[in-house]
Amino acid sequence: MTIPQLTAQIQKKKSFLCIGLDVDLDKIPKHLLYTEDPIFAFNKAIIDATQHLCVAYKPNTAFYEAYGLKGWKALEKTIGYLNENYPEIFTIADAKRGDIGNTSTRYAKAFFEDLGFDSVTVAPYMGKDSVEPFLAFEDKHTILLALTSNAGAFDFQTQMVEGKTLYTKVLETSKSWKNSKNLMYVVGATKAAYFQNIRKIIPNAFLLVPGVGAQGGSLQEVCKYGMNDSVGLLINSSRGIIYAAHDESFAEAAASKAEALQLEMKAILG
Amino acid sequence: MTIPQLTAQIQKKKSFLCIGLDVDLDKIPKHLLYTEDPIFAFNKAIIDATQHLCVAYKPNTAFYEAYGLKGWKALEKTIGYLNENYPEIFTIADAKRGDIGNTSTRYAKAFFEDLGFDSVTVAPYMGKDSVEPFLAFEDKHTILLALTSNAGAFDFQTQMVEGKTLYTKVLETSKSWKNSKNLMYVVGATKAAYFQNIRKIIPNAFLLVPGVGAQGGSLQEVCKYGMNDSVGLLINSSRGIIYAAHDESFAEAAASKAEALQLEMKAILG
Repeated sequence: MTIPQLTAQIQKKKSFLCIGLDVDLDKIPKHLLYTEDPIFAFNKAIIDATQHLCVAYKPNTAFYEAYGLKGWKALEKTIGYLNENYPEIFTIADAKRGDIGNTSTRYAKAFFEDLGFDSVTVAPYMGKDSVEPFLAFEDKHTILLALTSNAGAFDFQTQMVEGKTLYTKVLETSKSWKNSKNLMYVVGATKAAYFQNIRKIIPNAFLLVPGVGAQGGSLQEVCKYGMNDSVGLLINSSRGIIYAAHDESFAEAAASKAEALQLEMKAILG
Repeated sequence: MTIPQLTAQIQKKKSFLCIGLDVDLDKIPKHLLYTEDPIFAFNKAIIDATQHLCVAYKPNTAFYEAYGLKGWKALEKTIGYLNENYPEIFTIADAKRGDIGNTSTRYAKAFFEDLGFDSVTVAPYMGKDSVEPFLAFEDKHTILLALTSNAGAFDFQTQMVEGKTLYTKVLETSKSWKNSKNLMYVVGATKAAYFQNIRKIIPNAFLLVPGVGAQGGSLQEVCKYGMNDSVGLLINSSRGIIYAAHDESFAEAAASKAEALQLEMKAILG
């Protein structure tokens, strides 16, 4: 998917919501556990009930890998279902991968070609040659971790490197990488005060913003400082939406939570 | 596996060799492609031929994920085969994972419990709460990326943070994390000059050292500056061993390459 296509979807749906599909079998409604593939059954119901309210879905691979083969199979079925039924939806493999050159190419192929995601999250610690193999794929997007939403972000990301924070250095350096036009960035909603600085460095890039809701970030604050002329934000909510209810009404309850966020977004878009 | 058990294996086998199982279907002998599970068939042959010469195996997950479900299945079979037949071998999932707290716990369960690896490689960028969930598993080991073997290591890892390099900061900070006794570190053999500094900070920890062979690192240099009283090194070689030949003699050829390294190690151990 291209950036203009994503932006068009945002304008059409009046939404820049991304829903995190972090499936935990201990948290999904009990009646689904008796289906053939409970993880996929849950995702399918959530997707069908919320797809008109959001522009992106983001399965975090950890939740699928934790269930071994059946988890990986459910991930395959989920992305397959999305690509077949809702091709206008932007898909994000939240995998936080990164390795030396040739090996990163393998990960890129796994997520972009084999599974068919539009984008994948990547960690910056190993530098240029660990990220460029992802950037080489046309109309695919590499979402680089910049400033994450967790407390540990302060351990290294906000440390001063030659007079600027490490995450600033990551943002600046990444702009010089080949095909950097295919970059997006993860910036946590819990760090809203930092968005002004970030927008000075990367005014045009899309930001994937986790941390609204359960983690305490504010949608209004993020939009105030992080939005650009073509919106440039994908606000993610996972637990706050998908676990809104634990009985047979779970999908409706999820849609209701998603709609509340979408209406806030519609008002902001004006 | 405990550290004393690993050290005992090193002394018994006179080897601190780790073999990287990075299976590429374009590089394995053609006749294996007609077997039911070519990836596992290749790994099994390599393992059976080399297990007396090394103390660890390290499949890099990228190579398995690139083949989707059948890749993940081959990974499961490979670790299952190792645990059943060679339980004295230390196993490393080279996965370079890392995510916010709860999510890292999922990855830890995937690799330590579901698959049954002894250790997993983890990226430090997200800080303490992304790594501690891995450290919570007893007799399992978390191998933190410190100074990697690739060129991109100079982008951020060697940048100065408050008067010291970022990788030094990572090493120092990680020592304060809960259960830091379960930490090992990745340090590339291509950066031999840095080992003296590293050993001042973490004199006792095991280092997983990629980059000997194909990437140009020197075993002698690494041992001179990186070895401690209980050896403290796992030297990895992947392509240089497993792709030594491409015909039916591939496993013997791999054993021969592994033996050459093991004999060098035996001489160093004295």
